[in-house]
Amino acid sequence: MTQSFAAALLADAEIETWFSQEAELHAMLEFEIALAQAQAATGLIPAEAAAAIARGGSEFTPDPAALAAGLFKDGVLGPGFVKALRASLPETARPYLHFGATSQDITDTALTLRLKPVMAVLTARLAALTGMLETLADDQGGMTLMAQTRMQAALPMTVKDKVASWLLPLRRHQDRLAALAPRLLVIQLGGPVGTRAELGDKAEQVAAGLAARLALGNAPCWHTARDNIVEFGAVLALIAGALGKIGLDAALLAQTENGSLKIAGGGTSSAMAHKANPVTAELLVALARHAAGLSGTLNQALLHENERSGAAWTLEWFTLPPLTIATGASLRAAAGLVPRMRFQPR
Amino acid sequence: MTQSFAAALLADAEIETWFSQEAELHAMLEFEIALAQAQAATGLIPAEAAAAIARGGSEFTPDPAALAAGLFKDGVLGPGFVKALRASLPETARPYLHFGATSQDITDTALTLRLKPVMAVLTARLAALTGMLETLADDQGGMTLMAQTRMQAALPMTVKDKVASWLLPLRRHQDRLAALAPRLLVIQLGGPVGTRAELGDKAEQVAAGLAARLALGNAPCWHTARDNIVEFGAVLALIAGALGKIGLDAALLAQTENGSLKIAGGGTSSAMAHKANPVTAELLVALARHAAGLSGTLNQALLHENERSGAAWTLEWFTLPPLTIATGASLRAAAGLVPRMRFQPR
Amino acid sequence: MTQSFAAALLADAEIETWFSQEAELHAMLEFEIALAQAQAATGLIPAEAAAAIARGGSEFTPDPAALAAGLFKDGVLGPGFVKALRASLPETARPYLHFGATSQDITDTALTLRLKPVMAVLTARLAALTGMLETLADDQGGMTLMAQTRMQAALPMTVKDKVASWLLPLRRHQDRLAALAPRLLVIQLGGPVGTRAELGDKAEQVAAGLAARLALGNAPCWHTARDNIVEFGAVLALIAGALGKIGLDAALLAQTENGSLKIAGGGTSSAMAHKANPVTAELLVALARHAAGLSGTLNQALLHENERSGAAWTLEWFTLPPLTIATGASLRAAAGLVPRMRFQPR
Amino acid sequence: MTQSFAAALLADAEIETWFSQEAELHAMLEFEIALAQAQAATGLIPAEAAAAIARGGSEFTPDPAALAAGLFKDGVLGPGFVKALRASLPETARPYLHFGATSQDITDTALTLRLKPVMAVLTARLAALTGMLETLADDQGGMTLMAQTRMQAALPMTVKDKVASWLLPLRRHQDRLAALAPRLLVIQLGGPVGTRAELGDKAEQVAAGLAARLALGNAPCWHTARDNIVEFGAVLALIAGALGKIGLDAALLAQTENGSLKIAGGGTSSAMAHKANPVTAELLVALARHAAGLSGTLNQALLHENERSGAAWTLEWFTLPPLTIATGASLRAAAGLVPRMRFQPR
Repeated sequence: MTQSFAAALLADAEIETWFSQEAELHAMLEFEIALAQAQAATGLIPAEAAAAIARGGSEFTPDPAALAAGLFKDGVLGPGFVKALRASLPETARPYLHFGATSQDITDTALTLRLKPVMAVLTARLAALTGMLETLADDQGGMTLMAQTRMQAALPMTVKDKVASWLLPLRRHQDRLAALAPRLLVIQLGGPVGTRAELGDKAEQVAAGLAARLALGNAPCWHTARDNIVEFGAVLALIAGALGKIGLDAALLAQTENGSLKIAGGGTSSAMAHKANPVTAELLVALARHAAGLSGTLNQALLHENERSGAAWTLEWFTLPPLTIATGASLRAAAGLVPRMRFQPR
Repeated sequence: MTQSFAAALLADAEIETWFSQEAELHAMLEFEIALAQAQAATGLIPAEAAAAIARGGSEFTPDPAALAAGLFKDGVLGPGFVKALRASLPETARPYLHFGATSQDITDTALTLRLKPVMAVLTARLAALTGMLETLADDQGGMTLMAQTRMQAALPMTVKDKVASWLLPLRRHQDRLAALAPRLLVIQLGGPVGTRAELGDKAEQVAAGLAARLALGNAPCWHTARDNIVEFGAVLALIAGALGKIGLDAALLAQTENGSLKIAGGGTSSAMAHKANPVTAELLVALARHAAGLSGTLNQALLHENERSGAAWTLEWFTLPPLTIATGASLRAAAGLVPRMRFQPR
Repeated sequence: MTQSFAAALLADAEIETWFSQEAELHAMLEFEIALAQAQAATGLIPAEAAAAIARGGSEFTPDPAALAAGLFKDGVLGPGFVKALRASLPETARPYLHFGATSQDITDTALTLRLKPVMAVLTARLAALTGMLETLADDQGGMTLMAQTRMQAALPMTVKDKVASWLLPLRRHQDRLAALAPRLLVIQLGGPVGTRAELGDKAEQVAAGLAARLALGNAPCWHTARDNIVEFGAVLALIAGALGKIGLDAALLAQTENGSLKIAGGGTSSAMAHKANPVTAELLVALARHAAGLSGTLNQALLHENERSGAAWTLEWFTLPPLTIATGASLRAAAGLVPRMRFQPR
Repeated sequence: MTQSFAAALLADAEIETWFSQEAELHAMLEFEIALAQAQAATGLIPAEAAAAIARGGSEFTPDPAALAAGLFKDGVLGPGFVKALRASLPETARPYLHFGATSQDITDTALTLRLKPVMAVLTARLAALTGMLETLADDQGGMTLMAQTRMQAALPMTVKDKVASWLLPLRRHQDRLAALAPRLLVIQLGGPVGTRAELGDKAEQVAAGLAARLALGNAPCWHTARDNIVEFGAVLALIAGALGKIGLDAALLAQTENGSLKIAGGGTSSAMAHKANPVTAELLVALARHAAGLSGTLNQALLHENERSGAAWTLEWFTLPPLTIATGASLRAAAGLVPRMRFQPR
C-alpha cells in the first residue's frame, strides 16, 4: 500500500527526513551518549561507563518494529529504546545509561536536535525565495500593474510595489526564526518529574555539558512549558500565510479577464484544452489555510496536566511535524512559482 | 526514509487502504468504465467503444510516478490519467473515453466510491464498540462509582450509569452515518462547468445509469456544493470526540489518588517502575482534539471560487483523509481500551 | 462604554434577543415552573407547592447583578438563581423548588427552549433566501455567464445554472435543521450526577411531563453527551459556509475586469470615488471563515470530564452563541445582497 | 436587551474600553490631526489647514449611528468618518483633510494607537501575576507535592518546583510582548493602494512626522502584510494557554481524591452542598481553548486579496478583539485564582 496521491502535495522530502524514524533514533542515541559523557565529566558516573555507552550507542541497531510496539504500549519511545540500548551494553555500564533522565528528556532533546537543521532549511529557503523575488522586481519591476483593493480595480502601481509588499513579511519571518532559535533549540533535561533531583548538585554542570556536546542551548527543564514549540508553529503558519497571500495574488492576477500575470507551465484541464490553471498558486493558498488550522490545534497542546500530559504531548506530535512539513512544501512551491511569473505589459 | 514513529499513533491501516494510490486508481477506472457503459446504453457513444473502454480499463496499468507528476502540474490527477488510459485504447474508442466528463467528476466519484467502504468500516467498528460497552455494563455495571462533577466528588452512581452516558452519543453517531450515507455516497457528474451540457438530453439517463452501475446514489452535480463532504467530517469529529470523552474519563478515574479504574496493560515509564500510564486513554483525547481541529479547517474548504476552486478542493484533500484516518485510529484505540477496563469496588 | 463598531458586522439583533439575560432568565423560570407542575402531577411534590412555585415564578424579579456575581463564583447561574427564587416563595413551597434537579438541568433546558425559536428564525430565513434566489433565477436566469474553474474562464453557462449551484446546499441545510430539531430540542433532566436517582420511580413520568409542558422533546439525560449541540454548530457553519461561497462568487464576478455582476449600492472608498466595493459579499466570506473557526473550537467542548465539566461546558458557552449569531448575521447579509445582484449581459 | 450572562465570563472591561466606539473614534481623530500636522511641517499642505483640522478635530462630535450605517455600506468606517469630519471643517481646510491617505491608514493606525495601551495593560498584568506566583512560592514553596506525570502519581516535588514551571513561560511572554511592540506599534500610511504615491517626495518625511506625533514607530506600509497583527494574536494565545495550564493543574490538584490544593472561595452547587468547585480554574481552561481557536482563525486572515481584502480584514476584526479580551479575562481570572491557592501539607 502506498500513501494517497494528494499526500504528495503536502510533502517535503528534505524536511520529512528529519522526522523519519531513522533521524529520531539517531538523535536519541546522540542524547544518551552526550548525557553519559556530560555526567562522566562531572564524576557522576564512571568514565568507563560513558565510554561504553558511547561505543555501544554508536554500534546499536534498534528494532523499529519493537520500538513502534513500545510506543503504543508506553505512549512514548523512551522506555523501549532505553531498555533495548541498555541490553546491548556491557553489564557494568547498564546502570549508568539514561541516568537521572526520563523519556521526555530524550524525546524532546531528540526533537530540538532535529529542529535545528529544519530551521536551517527553512531559513535557507526563505533567503532563496527572497532572492528570487528581488530578481523578479529587478527584471519586471518597472511594469505597471492595476492595484486591486477590495477586489476592485483601484489605481496603477508597479510590479516593484507589488513585490515589495510580498517581501516585507518574508524578511520579518527570517528575523523571527533567528530570534526564536536560541529559545527553541535547547536541551531538555528534567528527570522523572522535571526537578533534576536525581542529578543532585551536579545538575547544572550536567545540563551545561549536555548542551555543549549537542551544540544546543542550555535551558531549565521545559517538560510542561511548551510555549517555544507552539511559537515555532505560529511562525510556520505565518510563513505559510505569507506565501499563501502570494499565491492568492497570483491566481487573481492570472484570471483570464485580468491577465496581468501569466504563469509559465500552467496546469491543463481534462475537458478544456484552452485553460492554463494557476495550480501552484492555488496550492499555496491551500497550504496556508491548512497550516493556519494546524497551528490553531497545536495551541491546544499547551494545556499539559501537571508534570507531563500524554494527551497534550501526543497532540503536539500530531500537529507540529505536519505543520513543519506543510510549511516546507509551501516554500518549495513558492520557489517553483515565482520564477514562472510573467507580468504582462498593460 | 520511513515516516515518523508518532505517525503510527495516528494511523489506521484498514482505512488508509482506501486512500492509497491503488484504491484511487481502481476507483477512477471503475468510473470511466461505468460512464462509458451508461453512455452506450443511451446511445450516446457506440457500444463497441464502451466495450473497448471496459476491456482496456481492466487491463490498464497506470504509471504512478507519471500520474504524481501530472498532479503537480495539473493540480488534479484526471488529465494525466485520462490521457494515459486513452493512449492505451484502440484508436476508435479514444474519443469516447471520459466523454462529457471533467476531472472533478472522476475524482469526486472515485472518492465517494471509496467512502462507501470506509463508512461501512466505521459503522462496523461503532457497532463493535457499542457491543463492548454493553458487555462492560453487563459485567461490571453493578459496581458503585463516585460521580465527579466539575472535577469534584459528587454522589455515588453505578458503572452502568457511566457506561450508559458513553453509549448515548455512539448510538446517535450510528444514526448519523446512516442518515448521511444516501446524501454523501452519490455520483459526481457535471462536465466541465457542472451543467452536464455536453451530454445533452441524455444527461439524466447517463447519470442514472452511472449511479446504478457504481452502486452509488444519483444526484445533481455537486462540484462546488461540498456540504455533504464537510458534514461527513463533522460526524467524524463527533465520533472522535465521543471517544475522547471516554478516554478522558478513563484517565481521570485511573489516577492514582482516585483508583476507581484500573487499565490492564498500562504503559511503563523509563524512570518510574511503579507507574501504569493510561496511554490509550490519553491517545483518545489527543485524537479527539486533533479531529476537532481538522474538522474546523475542513469547513474552510466550503468556499469554492465559482465553478471549481483548486485551493478549496486541495484543502479538502489535505484534511478529509487524515480526519477519516484519525477517527479510524480512535475507534481502534477505543476498542483496545474498553476491554482492558477494570472498575474497582469501593 | 459601547461595543466596538466592528462588532455590529457580527451582530444579529433577532438572534441575540434569545441569548440575552432576560430570555435566559425567562426560560429558567419556565423550567422551574414546569418541573414543579410535572412533579406535582405524579404526586412527587404537593400540588400546592407547584401552584406556589408557578405563582411565585411568574412574579419573580431576579437581580441580574447578583446573578452575574453568582456566575463568577459558582461557574453557572443555577445556584444563585434557585436560591433567590426560593427566597421569594412561601416557606412551605421552598423545599419543593428545583426538586431533584441540578443547575445543569435548568441551564441546558433553558438553552434548548431558546434554541427552538432560534432554529425557527434560521429556518424561516433560509426559506426566504431560497425564495430570493429562485426569484433571481426567474428574473435573470436566462443570461449567459462565463463559468470559471480554478479561477480561469472555462465555458459559458447561464445565471440559472449558477443560482442552482447556490440553492442546492441551502435546501439540504433546511433538511438538516429539520432532522436535527427533534434530537436537539429536548429537555435536560438528570439531577446532580445525571442519574435521576432523586426522582425515584417517578423519573420517567416527570421527564415526560416536563417535556410536554415545555413543548420540548423527551430524552435521557445528556449532561455530558453534547453531540447534538456540537452538531448544531456544525450545521451553522455549513450554512455560513454556503453563504460565504455565494459572497465569494459575487465578489469575483463583480471584479472590474470581469464585470459579469453589478451589486447595486456598493461600498464607497475614502480615497477612490470610482469604486463600488462588494462589501456585503466580502462580509459573507469573513462570516463563513469565522463560523468555521468557531465550529472547530466548539468541537473541543465535547470532552467533558466525567459527569460535568466546567471547562468544556464554559467553552461551549463561549462558542455556540457567537456561532449562532454569526450565522444569523450571515443569513441577514445574504438576504441583503441577493436582491441587489444584477448580472450583466455579455 | 442585554448581552448574555455567559458573555461576562469572557469580558474584560479595561481591555474592552480600548475597543469601544469612543476609543476608536478618538484614535481616528488623533490620526487625522497628526497627519495634517506632519504634512504641514513638510509644506505639503498649508499650516492654516493643519491648524483648522486640529481645531475642528478636537471639537468634532461624530454621530455613531451614522458611522455604523456607513460601516455596513462601505465595509470600513473611514469614508463616513472623513466625510463627516470634513463637513465640520471650514471650507478652506476641507481639501487637506485625509490628504493622500486611505481608510485603511486611519483604521489600522487607530488600531495600533489603541494596542499600545492594551499591551501595557497585558504587560502590567503579567508582571503582577508573576509577582503573585513568586509570593506563592515564597509562602508555600517548601511544601511537598506529589508530582503527576501522565495523570499518575510520580515522585514528590515541592510547591516551589511547581510554581517555577508555571513562571517560566510567563516570563518568556513578557519578553515576547516587549520584542513584538516595536514591530506592531507602528503607523499605517500607504495611501489608496499602499504606495504613498500621493505624497510624492515628502512621503518619508510625512511618515516620520506622523509616527513621532503619535508616539508610534515608523514603518513602511503594511496594508496587506498582517504578520505582526497575527503574531500578536499568537502571543495572546500563548499567554492564555500558559494560564490555562495553571488552571488545569489547579483543578486536578483540587480534586477531592487528590486534595493537594484547596481553592478558597470555591463555587457552590445547586444540588450538592458539600462541593467546592474549582470554577476559576475551569474558566482558565475554557479561555485558553477559546483563545487557541481564535488565534487559529486569525491566521486565516493573512490571505489578503491583492492590495486590500475586505474579507480577510473583516475576519481580523472578528477575531483579534475577542482574542485580546479573552486573554485579558484570563489574566484577570488568574490574578483572582492564585492568591486563593492553599497547598495542603501531605
